[in-house]
Amino acid sequence: MAITVVGSVAFDTVETPAGRIERCLAGAATYFSLAASYFTDVRVIGVVGEDFGAEQEAVFAARGIDIRGIERAPGKSFFWQGSYLENLNEAKTLQTDLNVFASFEPKIPEAYKDSEFLFLANIDPVLQKRVRDAMPQVKLVGGDTMNYWINDHRANLLKTLAGVDLLLINDTETKLLAGTKNPVKAAQDVLALGPKALVVKHGEYGATAFFGKNAFAKLGLDAHHPFRAPALPLAEVVDPTGAGDSFAGGFFGYIASQPVLTPSVFKRAMFYGGVMGSFTVERFGTERLQHLTREEIEARFAIFRELTHLD
Amino acid sequence: MAITVVGSVAFDTVETPAGRIERCLAGAATYFSLAASYFTDVRVIGVVGEDFGAEQEAVFAARGIDIRGIERAPGKSFFWQGSYLENLNEAKTLQTDLNVFASFEPKIPEAYKDSEFLFLANIDPVLQKRVRDAMPQVKLVGGDTMNYWINDHRANLLKTLAGVDLLLINDTETKLLAGTKNPVKAAQDVLALGPKALVVKHGEYGATAFFGKNAFAKLGLDAHHPFRAPALPLAEVVDPTGAGDSFAGGFFGYIASQPVLTPSVFKRAMFYGGVMGSFTVERFGTERLQHLTREEIEARFAIFRELTHLD
Repeated sequence: MAITVVGSVAFDTVETPAGRIERCLAGAATYFSLAASYFTDVRVIGVVGEDFGAEQEAVFAARGIDIRGIERAPGKSFFWQGSYLENLNEAKTLQTDLNVFASFEPKIPEAYKDSEFLFLANIDPVLQKRVRDAMPQVKLVGGDTMNYWINDHRANLLKTLAGVDLLLINDTETKLLAGTKNPVKAAQDVLALGPKALVVKHGEYGATAFFGKNAFAKLGLDAHHPFRAPALPLAEVVDPTGAGDSFAGGFFGYIASQPVLTPSVFKRAMFYGGVMGSFTVERFGTERLQHLTREEIEARFAIFRELTHLD
Repeated sequence: MAITVVGSVAFDTVETPAGRIERCLAGAATYFSLAASYFTDVRVIGVVGEDFGAEQEAVFAARGIDIRGIERAPGKSFFWQGSYLENLNEAKTLQTDLNVFASFEPKIPEAYKDSEFLFLANIDPVLQKRVRDAMPQVKLVGGDTMNYWINDHRANLLKTLAGVDLLLINDTETKLLAGTKNPVKAAQDVLALGPKALVVKHGEYGATAFFGKNAFAKLGLDAHHPFRAPALPLAEVVDPTGAGDSFAGGFFGYIASQPVLTPSVFKRAMFYGGVMGSFTVERFGTERLQHLTREEIEARFAIFRELTHLD
């Protein structure tokens, strides 16, 4: 079943202890859609500038990703420059040029409107809500956000969260959104804002899913039983950019590929999320995500499973 | 099979967001031995002052712990005062009085000398090595250390580590000991110092075991397959003191209770470590560890297992 994702399609310049890459194809919707494309059909809504050409189109085309919803606008694409030289776990932003993204008005192609899944990547919650409202037929909505929207656009964000089923954010964002430091209380507070499930990403330690009181009770996923998926300890992280978006793509892509959302599907989706994130960080930009095989993905899934599996 | 543990038996005054406790029975050897006592026989080596009386003895006696190796010295017991008011994940030390611990010379009772397991809790590595050398019959040695010994007593620590089979330390200590930030490379470097296995504790995120190149290969535990056990997301942490020592006690106690160390035993031991740590932090001091039942432990083990289990 198809996923529509709305979010940034961008160019990044990134420096890490492993080296530097200039103006590589990036953006949350790019990482998400590449990761999800190994599991299901993906359609992207976004905006790019005149610097987005045949080379970038080919990356999406090679993975069968529908980009008819990526608008071409006069000017340059969204650009981000960051450094991981001081801390591999957190980027230091050196430059952000919104460019064509500053006046982004999502337009949804008719061909996207039978999508059963919608993912609202990290953009202005006003735009997230507009897309969500324009696609009333979707049966499951996933979403992401970040500190900036939590701090400075909270009222708008809360309106959006009321319509999000599965929210994927990190530890810091969860605590900030809830206003409390205890991870369990923070999760409960966030779930009270609307999401049926909250997936809290812990970076190198994996991710934990918390479930709303009644939301998934009929599936056997209830508030008293969180689920935790590991991340693989990696000997080398070349470029952490996009790990979280790749997690979301693997997670949501796997769910969309399955006929019914059962507890088992949800748990496996958490593992597939970790798997896709672990591939992304092995190379700069989207390089690793562009040329995977399903066999490589399944082999790594087996390693993740073994990592925490008791006989 | 019996474990002998050498380490601190102390009194703590602790303040946390949940309240304050004055001069409660504490110390690494205390937490370790109480946690391990639910799995196997435990014998303690340490020193206390005149403030250690019938009330404290009764805590050990109730759990069948042999304290003939706890020397009574003139003066006061080791005392530590700390606060978790600012950060529940890291104590701020307000006061440390070594007292009788300053001149501690471990003495090993004859009755301890048939112990097959030895745990060197966090004390001066010179003393750790002395105890280890005095007990050549032990078949498995576990150990712990801390930043102070790593930074200021490295040469002595390295001599001790050469004789430790299973080292249990946290993320920060691992990176400091190895001198590198990458968790996998740091683990490899630490394993090169002697330990056959390194268990890196991640606090609220659980723990990861790394195995030496040839050390446990015959058991199927090799350098390319780390193992990660989760920690349970807890709605309330009353007092984090002793969580790591309780982890070590549950981990090592379970191993000592099993006839053979297999990969399955090692992995389950990691889960039991997490289980015992999760109980400890639910109450101040050793209160929760004093009155558990094996049924409570098994019930929580089942929750830990379910937390990461794929069908």
